[in-house]
Amino acid sequence: MALAPVALSMGEPAGIGGELTLKAWLRRAEGMPAFFAIDDPARLTALATHLGLAVPVTTITHAAEAAAVFPNALPVLAQPLVTPVEPGRPAPANVASVRASIARAVELAQSGTASAIVTNPIHKGVMYQGGFRFPGHTEFLAHLLGLAGDEVMMLACPSLKVVPVTIHVALAEAVRSLTHARIVATGLATAHALRVDFGIARPRLAVAGLNPHAGEDGAMGCEEIHMIAPAVAELRAAGIDAVGPLPPDTMFHGAARARYDAALCMYHDQALIPLKTLGFDEGVNITLGLPIVRTSPDHGTAFQLAGTGTASETSLMAALSMAAHIARNRMMPQ
Amino acid sequence: MALAPVALSMGEPAGIGGELTLKAWLRRAEGMPAFFAIDDPARLTALATHLGLAVPVTTITHAAEAAAVFPNALPVLAQPLVTPVEPGRPAPANVASVRASIARAVELAQSGTASAIVTNPIHKGVMYQGGFRFPGHTEFLAHLLGLAGDEVMMLACPSLKVVPVTIHVALAEAVRSLTHARIVATGLATAHALRVDFGIARPRLAVAGLNPHAGEDGAMGCEEIHMIAPAVAELRAAGIDAVGPLPPDTMFHGAARARYDAALCMYHDQALIPLKTLGFDEGVNITLGLPIVRTSPDHGTAFQLAGTGTASETSLMAALSMAAHIARNRMMPQ
Repeated sequence: MALAPVALSMGEPAGIGGELTLKAWLRRAEGMPAFFAIDDPARLTALATHLGLAVPVTTITHAAEAAAVFPNALPVLAQPLVTPVEPGRPAPANVASVRASIARAVELAQSGTASAIVTNPIHKGVMYQGGFRFPGHTEFLAHLLGLAGDEVMMLACPSLKVVPVTIHVALAEAVRSLTHARIVATGLATAHALRVDFGIARPRLAVAGLNPHAGEDGAMGCEEIHMIAPAVAELRAAGIDAVGPLPPDTMFHGAARARYDAALCMYHDQALIPLKTLGFDEGVNITLGLPIVRTSPDHGTAFQLAGTGTASETSLMAALSMAAHIARNRMMPQ
Repeated sequence: MALAPVALSMGEPAGIGGELTLKAWLRRAEGMPAFFAIDDPARLTALATHLGLAVPVTTITHAAEAAAVFPNALPVLAQPLVTPVEPGRPAPANVASVRASIARAVELAQSGTASAIVTNPIHKGVMYQGGFRFPGHTEFLAHLLGLAGDEVMMLACPSLKVVPVTIHVALAEAVRSLTHARIVATGLATAHALRVDFGIARPRLAVAGLNPHAGEDGAMGCEEIHMIAPAVAELRAAGIDAVGPLPPDTMFHGAARARYDAALCMYHDQALIPLKTLGFDEGVNITLGLPIVRTSPDHGTAFQLAGTGTASETSLMAALSMAAHIARNRMMPQ
């Protein structure tokens, strides 16, 4: 069964998303799945001209047309901007278009017309100014899909997959908000995703400690003893091949990474530092626990680069490939 | 002026230190400085036989003899064990020998008979059982040298140097104990060491934030605004090329590392995760702020590997080379 095309949302139109979309299409021969943008065709055409990129843009009226168009032109499902945009100068009036592009992508994935969605980066500050009330894509998707908001973020690069248990909070708050239950729930979601989305029959989880040397038997913090070790035991009791708590500093070199499929991390930078040290341009953000497949490049709107033609499309290309990879795995009998 | 030999302390004799000492000598042609062990000659000879390593051991009575011996045999300044030792089975009775080996190395470096000291790993638990009352080498060295205890730890591998402002404390305590004054003091010590010990005329410091995305303008923590940014400003006012606070996750990839000479990190794993991810076998620990040069391999006693012949000597070799490199730089006119 052929894979439906991947839907790519506009993202903040004053950011680098449009440029990356054009560049990813130019490199479509490099294993890209067929994708279509939900964007303003006129602005993409103007952007291609501005950057000197030979990208013919073809407006489609239904996602099903994307596959036939894709080899010869960038298929675009029209989502017009409210007001013209200049690179690096966001206009809050366009937030309605940005939001509609995401919502349309979700609808198409729910109907199966798109196999997955990839979201170009949005800018939280601009979105708030434009009346958007969600902290980010993930919360908006949960809202659209009627979910409870216990989605899990995985970051992946070719040599590492990480899942932070606590995410976008101050480090002091991350330490305070860590619980046995959150570690177990995140571990279960991660193991499930490794099986279903990545086709790993018996996933191996490496669970990080919180403190230096994983606390060294309580000498430098007790969370490992009171919370993390019992959570690992509970995951193991649930049949998951989990090990830990491991000393955080010695679990990310090559030989250590060979021993697990994903690392469960206690806070944002414990996960993101090794990920971005190893695969800065190649990181992909994957939202686990959604009924649809959603990935995104692991970077922001980069207003300072917008319009210069210098932003790297590597992460977006990895996000598109990863979305198709997961969608294919979900089509397999479990 | 020729460099005096480097003094290498015994470390825990039931650990991997003796084996690494023998193996490092075997690879002396690979740019090793002349060094001598302060150890039990009989136990090193027996260990070489046990491991099948062709290392002739020559007892010397004065460090000055080491240079002549070194090309043909491992020079050992005798520090006998109290009781025979078996690999992996530490005997607290030998703590007196371990301690004396370190103290002797310090004396020799103070007198200039040794150019630097490199310490093989000790085991805190065993040392405590044997009546040693210092948390580690650094505190013992400060005691021997009559210092106030404001030494700074740098970890270095070929592609990265990091200095953690807080070190061996629980993460929650690291957050609580971070102060403007400690960041500034650590930054000043780091910049001084980069100039004097590494010969970098105008060192560039990258100062990490504490929170995800360096707090994102206060949205995820305020330490960057109240403490770290003012500390960076104070370092700059002192003439140091410091930048930050930087988002911790995006400061350790290759292109980012090219922009600084050392990263000032707010807690242990923020420094050690990237260091050990990039250079697991090659890390060297350097104690800054001492009147003598001291480095050590960046690993522990590894009792489970002791006697098996499988431990890697790479980090010890890097520590020996680094010690000589720093000693040479300190001989240069500033």
